[in-house]
Amino acid sequence: MPNQGLSVNLATVRQQWNLGEAVAACARHGIRAVDPWRDQVAGYGLADSAKVIRDHGMTVTGYCRGGMFPSADRDGRLAAIDDNRRALDEAATLGAQCLVLVVGGLPPGSRDLAGAREMVAEGMAAVLPHARAVGVPLAIEPLHPMYAGDRACVNTLGQALDLCDRLGPDVGVAIDAYHVWWDPDLAAQIARAGRDKRILAYHICDWLVPTRDLLLDRGMMGDGVIDLPAIGQMIENAGYAGFHEVEIFSAENWWKRPGDEVLATCLERFATVC
Amino acid sequence: MPNQGLSVNLATVRQQWNLGEAVAACARHGIRAVDPWRDQVAGYGLADSAKVIRDHGMTVTGYCRGGMFPSADRDGRLAAIDDNRRALDEAATLGAQCLVLVVGGLPPGSRDLAGAREMVAEGMAAVLPHARAVGVPLAIEPLHPMYAGDRACVNTLGQALDLCDRLGPDVGVAIDAYHVWWDPDLAAQIARAGRDKRILAYHICDWLVPTRDLLLDRGMMGDGVIDLPAIGQMIENAGYAGFHEVEIFSAENWWKRPGDEVLATCLERFATVC
Repeated sequence: MPNQGLSVNLATVRQQWNLGEAVAACARHGIRAVDPWRDQVAGYGLADSAKVIRDHGMTVTGYCRGGMFPSADRDGRLAAIDDNRRALDEAATLGAQCLVLVVGGLPPGSRDLAGAREMVAEGMAAVLPHARAVGVPLAIEPLHPMYAGDRACVNTLGQALDLCDRLGPDVGVAIDAYHVWWDPDLAAQIARAGRDKRILAYHICDWLVPTRDLLLDRGMMGDGVIDLPAIGQMIENAGYAGFHEVEIFSAENWWKRPGDEVLATCLERFATVC
Repeated sequence: MPNQGLSVNLATVRQQWNLGEAVAACARHGIRAVDPWRDQVAGYGLADSAKVIRDHGMTVTGYCRGGMFPSADRDGRLAAIDDNRRALDEAATLGAQCLVLVVGGLPPGSRDLAGAREMVAEGMAAVLPHARAVGVPLAIEPLHPMYAGDRACVNTLGQALDLCDRLGPDVGVAIDAYHVWWDPDLAAQIARAGRDKRILAYHICDWLVPTRDLLLDRGMMGDGVIDLPAIGQMIENAGYAGFHEVEIFSAENWWKRPGDEVLATCLERFATVC
């Protein structure tokens, strides 16, 4: 089954437009799905965000983001759990298909990666009943290993799927090509994710050579070295038939260009490269 | 069995000293082992490098570096194999315990990571008879996944050990904490490496948060988030009783400080942090 087309993660045009402008621009370009970030929704207002998304008939392929569970103390961990419950409420209001989790890295001062990983599992378990209650599944996004220290201590798809196995239903994965393309076990783990019905979202962009910044130098599809057709095929073979969501953080390039140029380029590359 | 002490990878002081000066400085600080780079040896002369190392009674814990096998064409791959044979000859002249391999990333214009990985296996197989002839084993250094595109398409210890299994004796791994610390499978794979007698070298430095450059912003032990005592314990439990080799690329910090300060700090941190 072919994918349903391109979704735009609104971080891709966060420097150009507010949420309402971005949704309207996507609609103007014929794009039928978006994934907003919490700060964008907060800036535009939750009710207004839900309305503009609904008025344009947009599918919401995810809501970015929950997670950030590890903390140096118990109060911090409880605050993170509360915050994730609020994120789930917002996601439900927006009609999002999942809450994307950037699970968090090491607490400040800690070098205990195994401990942080356990905090993630415990935090997700605490949040999961609320996810079920509001009908929004949790999508673990395994992040590239270069973020293990400060952003996410879940760093491979296999590790994320092990966590899904531990937590049970209503948990899945958001597979971002940027984070997983290097993994020698990728094909096997995507197949496993499909068998287990765990694929909740598929994100695309490209890995630039050279990459000049660990966070904000992601590339447009086709400008880097990721074999996006091959990974897209693995994803479709695994039974995922949803949108392909473009998400590009690019401080020195795409964030500086007109939003319409960015969206037009995303569509053109999605059609010709992916 | 305790480790044999600190070895200094001479890239750590490459901006401060030539090879002869660096070896003499290490000896002055009571350091008994070094790992030189090919360009440092070429700059000082192979015979002179071997002599200064011998005169100071230094163990050579490795020679950096061979590898870079993938190429867009057959001529390029054959040239890489020839170059690795020359590197092995140099390593033998220097008395190095292994030739460290940074295996290479994608050939220019390619997105075929599986193909690049196959070129690595084939290149190593072609070089291996010469490694055996000169008595210098090949040490695959799995590099952090952020280097998969341009430097090394072997990105986990497990993947490197699979390659060892395929190639047979006289191949092993150089385990660098910087490259592998994030790996959820690290403890199991270090234990496997020990069982299989594949650990040829152990490198240390630290992962800084934030990391400002993908290549040249490595940290001094203790300044980052790697749990070096835990990984060092895994390495020793796996039966490795060799030197711990410090290797720091640090364009904006350690490369700008006096070499004696760098060496003194390495020794102090090795004693107190690792």
